[in-house]
Amino acid sequence: MSHEFWFKEYHTEHNGIFFRIERILFQKKTPFQQIDIVESPVFGKVLLLDGLVMTTELDEFVYHEMLVHPAMVLHPSPKQVLVIGGGDGGTVRELIKYQEVKEIIQSEIDREVVEAAKKYLPELSSGFNDPRVKIFFEDGVKFVKESDASVFDLIFVDSSDPVGPATVLYGDEFIESLHRVLKPNGIVVFQSESPFTRLDIIKSLFDGLAKKFKVVKPYLAPMPGYPDGTWSFLMAMNESYDEPVRKLPSGLKYVNEDILKSAFALPNFVKNRLYD
Amino acid sequence: MSHEFWFKEYHTEHNGIFFRIERILFQKKTPFQQIDIVESPVFGKVLLLDGLVMTTELDEFVYHEMLVHPAMVLHPSPKQVLVIGGGDGGTVRELIKYQEVKEIIQSEIDREVVEAAKKYLPELSSGFNDPRVKIFFEDGVKFVKESDASVFDLIFVDSSDPVGPATVLYGDEFIESLHRVLKPNGIVVFQSESPFTRLDIIKSLFDGLAKKFKVVKPYLAPMPGYPDGTWSFLMAMNESYDEPVRKLPSGLKYVNEDILKSAFALPNFVKNRLYD
Repeated sequence: MSHEFWFKEYHTEHNGIFFRIERILFQKKTPFQQIDIVESPVFGKVLLLDGLVMTTELDEFVYHEMLVHPAMVLHPSPKQVLVIGGGDGGTVRELIKYQEVKEIIQSEIDREVVEAAKKYLPELSSGFNDPRVKIFFEDGVKFVKESDASVFDLIFVDSSDPVGPATVLYGDEFIESLHRVLKPNGIVVFQSESPFTRLDIIKSLFDGLAKKFKVVKPYLAPMPGYPDGTWSFLMAMNESYDEPVRKLPSGLKYVNEDILKSAFALPNFVKNRLYD
Repeated sequence: MSHEFWFKEYHTEHNGIFFRIERILFQKKTPFQQIDIVESPVFGKVLLLDGLVMTTELDEFVYHEMLVHPAMVLHPSPKQVLVIGGGDGGTVRELIKYQEVKEIIQSEIDREVVEAAKKYLPELSSGFNDPRVKIFFEDGVKFVKESDASVFDLIFVDSSDPVGPATVLYGDEFIESLHRVLKPNGIVVFQSESPFTRLDIIKSLFDGLAKKFKVVKPYLAPMPGYPDGTWSFLMAMNESYDEPVRKLPSGLKYVNEDILKSAFALPNFVKNRLYD
């Protein structure tokens, strides 16, 4: 083979990552975005949406375990769960590990992402077969606005980054809606960007959540495929859950009890900005 | 300006990072390596050795604080300190924050790195002016081999990665030498690669240290400029120091007491490999 395929993602106009592409498994332009699934030597299979890395085999377990388990072990009765986005299935895969979960409602705007994940990313999407999962192919903002009040114990916002269409998922109006559909003792978890170069976005979401929720806890995890290699999450709730009330599922690759505690330790430069 | 300068670092032959270069501040080919100091929009000033990112303004505080402070707060009497490498000065800058430190011996192979850092990276190199610091421009391996036994309370191996000339710094013979020049109650700290794609190197150094030292403690920190964005460190000692015996210096940007505890929490995939 005399030619080479390379992928390049600009994290800002000034920097980014690149990796070799061995095979392109799937490409489709949907009404919502460009979907690509590629195979690469270091990252393994990679899901790209509009040319941005969403999921890689190298690190997806960190992201999905860290989005789901910190809240799952804290909530006293996690029966009704809502997932916004999460079309690759990784979040659902982690959620179905809990017997306590009775129903998982997922609102994913793009049916094609789910279909592609089912076909090309079975390691992520296998959980979609669980009878407790119901997927609605709808805009998450609209879905939450039209949902009944106080129905969910837990909500996971597993969305694209706040550029383009997902920007609304970081705004006050959406937080207002989430607060309304969440039970009073519920927990909502957002994925929320890199603390090194996007701390302003984290701060803005943190402040937005703090207006509606009594407790907002940021936490961090390493993510080699995402900008700066470190990602943040924000957990918001009205109760102050401090100690885990259930065990972690067995077989996790990233999360354990030490990690659950340590992830909430924030570096000084993050603390100083969030609590200034 | 119609042209653009870009820097590209391959972390493997298949992937890496790139960033825009605004200005090249310094370039020199020394008997040991190619030194470049450049200015870039996101990473700020960057020191490159043989084309690999060593130090960036964006994240150097994480690396240097995490190399130095976890051991410094544990050791009962950190008077005599040895630094292997560390030509940019960041490690010395953190060390001189402790009154308890009476002498810092630094063995840096390349005088030109220190000279360039003094001129172009004053934020890092300012500590070189401290009267407690004595720099020997010598090969670290040779320096340690020729040093008296049991003289250092703490040793920090702030070296290049184990490719090319620095490979010996990860071998059994060097560990043997370090063990000899360290006092019996001393601590040695290594920087030791990414846990995501270079876990075999960490494992090998971990096993090498475990042969000579009773306790080896790995810990992690985020490093956007380094491969995979997460870096590991290995702390080795013959005493089991568990609780800090002194306070952290004020004004740190990354490290605080929560971070000191949480950094030692290892993900399952790291634990499983290191303790298999």
